[in-house]
Amino acid sequence: MNLALVALVKNIKNVVENKLIFCDMNTFNMIIACPDKKGIIYDITSFLFSLGANIIELEQHIEDSMFFMRIKWQMNSSLSKDDFLQKIQGLQQKFNLTIKLDNSGASKKLGLFCSKELHCLIDVLGKAATNELNISIEYVISNHKNVQSLVEKFNIPFFYIPTKKGSFQHESECLKVMNNYQTDFIGLARYMKILSGDFLQNAQQKIINVHHSFLPSFIGANPYEEAYERGVKLIGATSHYVTEELDQGPIIEQVVRRIKHSHNIKNLKLMGKESEKEVFAFAIRKHLENKLIVYKNRTIVFE
Amino acid sequence: MNLALVALVKNIKNVVENKLIFCDMNTFNMIIACPDKKGIIYDITSFLFSLGANIIELEQHIEDSMFFMRIKWQMNSSLSKDDFLQKIQGLQQKFNLTIKLDNSGASKKLGLFCSKELHCLIDVLGKAATNELNISIEYVISNHKNVQSLVEKFNIPFFYIPTKKGSFQHESECLKVMNNYQTDFIGLARYMKILSGDFLQNAQQKIINVHHSFLPSFIGANPYEEAYERGVKLIGATSHYVTEELDQGPIIEQVVRRIKHSHNIKNLKLMGKESEKEVFAFAIRKHLENKLIVYKNRTIVFE
Amino acid sequence: MNLALVALVKNIKNVVENKLIFCDMNTFNMIIACPDKKGIIYDITSFLFSLGANIIELEQHIEDSMFFMRIKWQMNSSLSKDDFLQKIQGLQQKFNLTIKLDNSGASKKLGLFCSKELHCLIDVLGKAATNELNISIEYVISNHKNVQSLVEKFNIPFFYIPTKKGSFQHESECLKVMNNYQTDFIGLARYMKILSGDFLQNAQQKIINVHHSFLPSFIGANPYEEAYERGVKLIGATSHYVTEELDQGPIIEQVVRRIKHSHNIKNLKLMGKESEKEVFAFAIRKHLENKLIVYKNRTIVFE
Amino acid sequence: MNLALVALVKNIKNVVENKLIFCDMNTFNMIIACPDKKGIIYDITSFLFSLGANIIELEQHIEDSMFFMRIKWQMNSSLSKDDFLQKIQGLQQKFNLTIKLDNSGASKKLGLFCSKELHCLIDVLGKAATNELNISIEYVISNHKNVQSLVEKFNIPFFYIPTKKGSFQHESECLKVMNNYQTDFIGLARYMKILSGDFLQNAQQKIINVHHSFLPSFIGANPYEEAYERGVKLIGATSHYVTEELDQGPIIEQVVRRIKHSHNIKNLKLMGKESEKEVFAFAIRKHLENKLIVYKNRTIVFE
Repeated sequence: MNLALVALVKNIKNVVENKLIFCDMNTFNMIIACPDKKGIIYDITSFLFSLGANIIELEQHIEDSMFFMRIKWQMNSSLSKDDFLQKIQGLQQKFNLTIKLDNSGASKKLGLFCSKELHCLIDVLGKAATNELNISIEYVISNHKNVQSLVEKFNIPFFYIPTKKGSFQHESECLKVMNNYQTDFIGLARYMKILSGDFLQNAQQKIINVHHSFLPSFIGANPYEEAYERGVKLIGATSHYVTEELDQGPIIEQVVRRIKHSHNIKNLKLMGKESEKEVFAFAIRKHLENKLIVYKNRTIVFE
Repeated sequence: MNLALVALVKNIKNVVENKLIFCDMNTFNMIIACPDKKGIIYDITSFLFSLGANIIELEQHIEDSMFFMRIKWQMNSSLSKDDFLQKIQGLQQKFNLTIKLDNSGASKKLGLFCSKELHCLIDVLGKAATNELNISIEYVISNHKNVQSLVEKFNIPFFYIPTKKGSFQHESECLKVMNNYQTDFIGLARYMKILSGDFLQNAQQKIINVHHSFLPSFIGANPYEEAYERGVKLIGATSHYVTEELDQGPIIEQVVRRIKHSHNIKNLKLMGKESEKEVFAFAIRKHLENKLIVYKNRTIVFE
Repeated sequence: MNLALVALVKNIKNVVENKLIFCDMNTFNMIIACPDKKGIIYDITSFLFSLGANIIELEQHIEDSMFFMRIKWQMNSSLSKDDFLQKIQGLQQKFNLTIKLDNSGASKKLGLFCSKELHCLIDVLGKAATNELNISIEYVISNHKNVQSLVEKFNIPFFYIPTKKGSFQHESECLKVMNNYQTDFIGLARYMKILSGDFLQNAQQKIINVHHSFLPSFIGANPYEEAYERGVKLIGATSHYVTEELDQGPIIEQVVRRIKHSHNIKNLKLMGKESEKEVFAFAIRKHLENKLIVYKNRTIVFE
Repeated sequence: MNLALVALVKNIKNVVENKLIFCDMNTFNMIIACPDKKGIIYDITSFLFSLGANIIELEQHIEDSMFFMRIKWQMNSSLSKDDFLQKIQGLQQKFNLTIKLDNSGASKKLGLFCSKELHCLIDVLGKAATNELNISIEYVISNHKNVQSLVEKFNIPFFYIPTKKGSFQHESECLKVMNNYQTDFIGLARYMKILSGDFLQNAQQKIINVHHSFLPSFIGANPYEEAYERGVKLIGATSHYVTEELDQGPIIEQVVRRIKHSHNIKNLKLMGKESEKEVFAFAIRKHLENKLIVYKNRTIVFE
């Protein structure tokens, strides 16, 4: 059943490797966060103006006397990221800026984990293959063996890492794989295994999870069963950054679908898959476009 | 600020009292529940056929070997409700039927409780005034004094029943009012006072509540504050039948609205009001149309 | 049936007249539009900085080499609107700015037109009465006589202006009323009469209409009937600025609701009312918060 | 880029061919339509009762004095479809029934057409591969050559049929392919070529199309461009049965997604793909579950 998957995985690799040349190297975007003060926007736009930049997107948000901004601009100059960061040091110190700078349009490298439900994985692979998502999938890790035999024949690295030897062994092996690849972030495409705090620290990159409920309702492994028991009229899905507490991380996106009393748990799971795919792909897109800021366990999601 | 309310309340009474003559006395609907068995639909439709009935709506639902059905029909005969119930006794015993029979189109009498938020109250009053809901509002009870002085001048009875003398005293006074009016059911239009199990038993009628969150998330008094803290991306509202445990009753309807990081708690409350009105009016409509069955703390909601 | 309406109308007046004192006079917002050029944001934020302003909201949009921005700020100084506009003249000329400046939080004066469907009118009156909308309703004009007799008894001016003497006469009388009141804008709360180009020119203010379909589908007087005939699965409502061509003006908001084959035209109309109220109130709110720009028959709707 | 597609296509074939053994041969469903008359439900349930059937789903709809019903039942007997149809002949004549009988759970054979947009195709292939849709894809026809070279290597038949030789030639070749395969229905997965009335007649099976707008708005080839120009605030997608007039067939499903002024046409197309996939898969599922009736260019969609 996973021949399709294997081929998609292989395919993505080819596509994405050729895609990098399309990047627009002169378009940058930057997220900043700092304590709110008069004159920040003025000073930053003044700084960009002095570099010959033309601002094409600007969004800001103020909350609790904190200032957040995403700004995107075009420049004709061939200023490198390092040069830019050096030049902005003065402002950084003046306002105590936290900065996340990015080349707009650059492809990002993604590692994927999955268990036996494949709809989120297939959706991301499909969106990569058709250029709907500008990502390169570097590897797929699964705790389900039947996927392994198929994927090994293909060009995208696949790793079967079972969980029966215990969490420590399992996570060590995952980390070994992760260290062999340079990825920008990781997506848990319906990966049904809880990851420890140690693992998260060692991962040293953001991890996006999709949970199959409308959080904070129905945390844990059986949300559709619990939603059915409670008799809710809408079922949801949530994508969030992973933190140490299960299903407690900052929420990135949520969607719901209407259900009826005539829908049984099997129907709920089927309908829920559409929501899961949607929130997972949304989170990946926003993350790779550098449009997410985490503040106090909430996310700021720029347009 | 409540002159408007007063006038609406008065107005509804006039309207509804004249409205009853429009009822179509020869259209009935009936909800039945019983253990599932071969031949139920056949026997019931056969029974109705023998009475000269023409079935115009039929919905059924099977779950856990239980059979549920709503059936609506027209008859030319002038059979009364009591006659009908007597005639169906044989079937009732054969299948162990629970039956709820109703004249379709008959207006229902509603008692309303509210606190200081008036949007749900105004919406229901408006829908009654414009015939969007076929109800007569018999009284309004509130624990907020400022409403009292205004409403007393008008024809719809208004009762200010404060909560400071303690729950027992408060609930006794409410029950006294309720006993003086014959209502079919009660609506809690954002009534911010927990009602005891004793009260619910003595009320002897269904009570519909609107809770300002997407249950089971954010039970209790401050759901918008908690939703903001958790950083959810959709805020919801839920209408449900009241049971002894707070916000745990069978859910009738839920809707959500999308929020953004730029929305503060005040914005959430404002947006949430639209959802609250929608689920409250929906629940009232379905209840008065005899389209709701409670089974195992869930609702079956017929179309 | 319209006693309620009358009371609501009267009530709003009282409420709103007392509400003006709550305005925060030192918070301003400004919408600007101009050809896109390097340095606009820098120059404008620099200008505001020089006045001692603290920017609390800023949104911008670029399209077709046009630049649009909404900016909201606080100032301790007691600069008047006129003083401000004089000071910004230099920038205005430099960038060829179109400016719309407003006191944030100031109440707006609204004139309302309605025909016989009252749900949009009641909703806006209710939102004004409960301070959900910061508006003062100055008058209500209707082409339905039965409303007149009731409303005359109350403090909000009501004008019955029939349409039987022809469009010219009807519109002249409306304009006479409008000239006697200073309103900021007009809302057509399901007003079922087409207004001429001459009328629109003479009105000299923005007019917001709610159309009971998902435009551009089902233009004209019978959208629910047409939607039913076509068998659509969602029915919608649209609020838009009125222009000379019927239902062709710039769309402000649209919402839809799901329907089923079991819903007849009467059901559609009932469900549609909820959508109509929602888009109409949304448009009024955005307009009074100075968050709408019309560009090429489309609207820019700031958050 | 289409290796993935090829593998998926191949894979589906294997999966589906093995899936048929899971069909529950003793569960049937039947759609009937006839002029409304007293006693239909009684007679039909009586008939099924006499065969020892246990009804597990029953939905009915009455409109314009027409009666429509879907009924699903289980029987222990090994009655064949032909036997059943013979036994029901008496009722069929009595009520003038139109009947569509089906084995519930039986897999259906589907032919797919696509052009260069692959998201709907990939989605359906993915849903078949993961058993979300109980279908066997018998062939894929495309008017885009680059797909051909890849798909020929795989087990699912692929046919490149260009349109440059004219409609007649193109359609003849398509019909030749279609005649070589026994399919239950055809899906146009974003097939951007208008099919003639002659073709439709010769196809002799239902054809489901997905149109990338909220019909009846924006008929034709460039709906997203037109939606952008008109400034709508929601963009939609529609699945419908194909009829001779372009985009005028009976609508099966519609969904919309909210857009903002900051979204350009490219964004609209990207967001719209999610809606297109959703309505297309919905229509395929409902059709294969025998839950669709066409009446007067509208669809009755049973739950």
